[in-house]
Amino acid sequence: MYSRINRPDWARLIAIAANEVKDEVGEGAVADYIPALANVDPNQFALSLSLVDGRTFHTGATGTRFSIQSISKVFTLTTALNYAGGNLWDVVGREPSGTGFNSIVQLERENGIPRNPFINAGAIVTTDQLVSSCENEDPIDKLLALVKDATSDRNIGIDGEVARSEREWGARNRSLAYFMKSFGVMTNDIETVLWTYFQQCAIAMTTSQLSRAGLFLAANGVDPVSGNVITTADRVARINALMLTCGHYDMSGDFAFRVGIPGKSGVGGGILAIVPGLGSFAVWSPALNKFGNSHAGTLALEILSHEAGLSVFLDPSR
Amino acid sequence: MYSRINRPDWARLIAIAANEVKDEVGEGAVADYIPALANVDPNQFALSLSLVDGRTFHTGATGTRFSIQSISKVFTLTTALNYAGGNLWDVVGREPSGTGFNSIVQLERENGIPRNPFINAGAIVTTDQLVSSCENEDPIDKLLALVKDATSDRNIGIDGEVARSEREWGARNRSLAYFMKSFGVMTNDIETVLWTYFQQCAIAMTTSQLSRAGLFLAANGVDPVSGNVITTADRVARINALMLTCGHYDMSGDFAFRVGIPGKSGVGGGILAIVPGLGSFAVWSPALNKFGNSHAGTLALEILSHEAGLSVFLDPSR
Amino acid sequence: MYSRINRPDWARLIAIAANEVKDEVGEGAVADYIPALANVDPNQFALSLSLVDGRTFHTGATGTRFSIQSISKVFTLTTALNYAGGNLWDVVGREPSGTGFNSIVQLERENGIPRNPFINAGAIVTTDQLVSSCENEDPIDKLLALVKDATSDRNIGIDGEVARSEREWGARNRSLAYFMKSFGVMTNDIETVLWTYFQQCAIAMTTSQLSRAGLFLAANGVDPVSGNVITTADRVARINALMLTCGHYDMSGDFAFRVGIPGKSGVGGGILAIVPGLGSFAVWSPALNKFGNSHAGTLALEILSHEAGLSVFLDPSR
Amino acid sequence: MYSRINRPDWARLIAIAANEVKDEVGEGAVADYIPALANVDPNQFALSLSLVDGRTFHTGATGTRFSIQSISKVFTLTTALNYAGGNLWDVVGREPSGTGFNSIVQLERENGIPRNPFINAGAIVTTDQLVSSCENEDPIDKLLALVKDATSDRNIGIDGEVARSEREWGARNRSLAYFMKSFGVMTNDIETVLWTYFQQCAIAMTTSQLSRAGLFLAANGVDPVSGNVITTADRVARINALMLTCGHYDMSGDFAFRVGIPGKSGVGGGILAIVPGLGSFAVWSPALNKFGNSHAGTLALEILSHEAGLSVFLDPSR
Repeated sequence: MYSRINRPDWARLIAIAANEVKDEVGEGAVADYIPALANVDPNQFALSLSLVDGRTFHTGATGTRFSIQSISKVFTLTTALNYAGGNLWDVVGREPSGTGFNSIVQLERENGIPRNPFINAGAIVTTDQLVSSCENEDPIDKLLALVKDATSDRNIGIDGEVARSEREWGARNRSLAYFMKSFGVMTNDIETVLWTYFQQCAIAMTTSQLSRAGLFLAANGVDPVSGNVITTADRVARINALMLTCGHYDMSGDFAFRVGIPGKSGVGGGILAIVPGLGSFAVWSPALNKFGNSHAGTLALEILSHEAGLSVFLDPSR
Repeated sequence: MYSRINRPDWARLIAIAANEVKDEVGEGAVADYIPALANVDPNQFALSLSLVDGRTFHTGATGTRFSIQSISKVFTLTTALNYAGGNLWDVVGREPSGTGFNSIVQLERENGIPRNPFINAGAIVTTDQLVSSCENEDPIDKLLALVKDATSDRNIGIDGEVARSEREWGARNRSLAYFMKSFGVMTNDIETVLWTYFQQCAIAMTTSQLSRAGLFLAANGVDPVSGNVITTADRVARINALMLTCGHYDMSGDFAFRVGIPGKSGVGGGILAIVPGLGSFAVWSPALNKFGNSHAGTLALEILSHEAGLSVFLDPSR
Repeated sequence: MYSRINRPDWARLIAIAANEVKDEVGEGAVADYIPALANVDPNQFALSLSLVDGRTFHTGATGTRFSIQSISKVFTLTTALNYAGGNLWDVVGREPSGTGFNSIVQLERENGIPRNPFINAGAIVTTDQLVSSCENEDPIDKLLALVKDATSDRNIGIDGEVARSEREWGARNRSLAYFMKSFGVMTNDIETVLWTYFQQCAIAMTTSQLSRAGLFLAANGVDPVSGNVITTADRVARINALMLTCGHYDMSGDFAFRVGIPGKSGVGGGILAIVPGLGSFAVWSPALNKFGNSHAGTLALEILSHEAGLSVFLDPSR
Repeated sequence: MYSRINRPDWARLIAIAANEVKDEVGEGAVADYIPALANVDPNQFALSLSLVDGRTFHTGATGTRFSIQSISKVFTLTTALNYAGGNLWDVVGREPSGTGFNSIVQLERENGIPRNPFINAGAIVTTDQLVSSCENEDPIDKLLALVKDATSDRNIGIDGEVARSEREWGARNRSLAYFMKSFGVMTNDIETVLWTYFQQCAIAMTTSQLSRAGLFLAANGVDPVSGNVITTADRVARINALMLTCGHYDMSGDFAFRVGIPGKSGVGGGILAIVPGLGSFAVWSPALNKFGNSHAGTLALEILSHEAGLSVFLDPSR
């Protein structure tokens, strides 16, 4: 096992990881709840690293854009915390749910307060708070502004077809939103909030862009390349904690167990994973395991973590 | 905010923490499900640090023994993994449960397989595996041997009164055990397993002993003082991951959010918390919050984490 | 105890029942989820009997209209069965739910199929089937036509203020509808179905009208006064069975236990109860017990059942 | 459709029913949780009627004894109500559970109070009350005395092999009992209560004996043949109500919907069904549907109900 401080040969390590998962790419099933995702070729793989020292490493289709889907919840949460502040925690918890990403059972038992901002219900109420923080600004523009600041890349946007498809097939999310509204948890017009939510899910990025977008989470809130202040260290500690405990739906514990670093997956097949003090990893492979997380992507991160001793639960100096 | 690498003045920090929580000691309620715990004076507090460099720091009643209760699940898991190996994961999961520590609901929905080894059902099945690994040995002796190796202290044992009281008032745990047996998950005689389980919950330690007992978890499996190999680095990464995601019952996410380090609490009012690469913290104050975790103990750890930048989700070098 | 065949003195019996519950009228709370119901005076009581032999008996405010709310589910089910036929049972079950009237938990566990047509979700999907059976007809007109046929009274209609209020405050029902839509259980436009649903809940009737409207259920499907065929005997057996097992939300078993006849309550404070072969009882008193059923109304029916030996579980000849 | 008052030709009707279900006998699966039941030949069928006028009708293997299993809950409830009185309702409810017969989920949500006396947990707590009512008497003797009074047949007893097998494989019921004990709902020693419970489940009867044993439930509490007073009319109304709402586990609503009379099934393949004022029906065929109720037995009762207009939800005079 490498140690984080022993300066691993990253180019070689990501090649090893990509090679080891080669036969697993395509195993599982792509998300099929909207046509725009169902038609994605499952046999794709990309892996990008952005280190806090400025170096980047890439393998696979790292220039192909994909729908980041639930990974956007990380950026929405960051934006909402920046603007809405701690009041967010009045309407959303920070506990793992023990149920699937779109489950409504817990909402009924707990008075419409979602367990955490990374399940759908929690992300919708987080989006509601983001909408509330906007006066003459489009909440999506506010969110994209943060992503652009984090990446120093103006060329990041929404896949309109995916966004419209999400809205058309959005009955389950609509149900979650109205359910919370019936408990008085939602503040704004439901369709306005949902359209913001569907758009953020439809943000399209490459792994190269995504790994850079997460780099501030490895560096206490400041993008170390540009020096842009994205958020505070205090919020970073909390966002990373939520990623670790809740970032992979009802497989979050398993990801912590096997990979040992904060991560957030999306049903588009992407995963963003953070090694505090070291860097940000983005992996993409569209075929999902039964919990809705990229099968090959999870495996690649597990291999990297093991080979480079990335787990936050190990002594980084040994 | 201090940084971990800036060598905080620990003596001063623990004095600050102890002072800040002074008025909170006694807030909440002591566990009352057995008389032996119900009679404990809630107005007690102790905090001990054992660092990987060998230094220790203490404040409060660090020489008073208390019932470590569920903290023992950490040592039982370590022992079971050492002897029973990976087969344990066939009968217990590694996901947060989203329910209380003694909930049975999830067991029914998931065929008698408990969510993780740190809820009661999961600890009972872990104990069952430990019992299976013993031939002519008492499983409790095996467990105590590991604790004694970790602490280099032979003077650690069971509080017999507490153990007998647990057995007498053990209907809920008995129900969990028989429930799992009905799904074929349990291997050994139920009362034999439960008696082992009740005894391990009744292990009595001081915070001084406890912080030392957890030190191998901060040091990739080896007690850095004695050099005793307690378990492998791989297992440490996983045990710490489980502590972070599942160590505080249905408040685990909140502990990760506020404190940001792996921890395991017990209804006796103790908490063991690990900072990989730095050290092991033990805190004790018997009055519990509504989730069953020490109120003042959690606060003290939150203060220390904030002051010394302990969160595993922050860059340790900044 | 009187026997059903001993021809009780009904005028005297309903006077006794009304007198005995006098002090209970107003106990409980009126429904407050919409302003139109929250403002109703709780201190009202009315009781009407329509017997299969054509006689009627009345006591209290039997000329005051009230919102029949969920009692309308009986008439909607009858209409839907008449027009949509047995296909209805592909999308709704006939089991008690074991949960509250607007619970969504069971829907998630059972793929969006509601347990029975008398909880909100089940009534919404029944309404969806009714809408599907209409081509150039307004589904509400179809439903009202059945009620008018059953009562030979053209003067029954919708309280428009209540209907609009239901729609304005309908987030929970909207959530249920979208949830079922996400499972493919709903066929028509959600707002169209809900508007039909909200209107039927807002049907306003007196107890005099309501007892007559239910008379066909005591007489194998034919209104014995007018001879109008409302539905088949087979459907009556099933509708009454559903009223007995599911007619009082999560207090249905208690109503069967204490009163022993098929009944359906509404949050407007009305209850329709059927004694097969004898007659139809309508009671109204707006203050509800904690399960959402009229407190005084339930008591009055319990007294009548006991005094006149009405329970379908007793030998009617003894 | 025949009417109840038109004196159907019962001999012919039961022959028709037996013939119509002939090809369905053996469909489904026999209970296999204990060896003593798993070895029963599924291809058996028996049907007996005992009418309040003293006549009896039989077809099939009506002289073969079978394990009445959960049908015994009816007799235990009657005995407990006779001796323990209304206090029983402090520790058990009377609502359908909406879950399977041995589910523990609801117990956790509702403080250890089972939903009704006909699910396992409810029958165990009912047995506990029966045990409490005994001083120097064996509770099983007390229960058997009631059954012998009802049948005027001293030759009814326990199948010892089944009782011992139940005890050996009783982990799930043991779990339910200890769970309720943890909430303070159980009064007596758990193994004593369970042994009584396992024995009553192991009562062996023929359909001939069983139909006679239930006759008092069709006749307001008095066996019309012997004149023996078994219980009060008030209790009969309530026991029958519970059989209708809760007698077939999570298929009770369906049985009410299709058959329309109070009934109680057992996993031995028997069903006891009551037509108040008319008579008591016992059917037996060991192969069960997925809800644990006799497949052919349910069908035979549905045919009889339809042909003879037995539903309590129809006008008996039409």
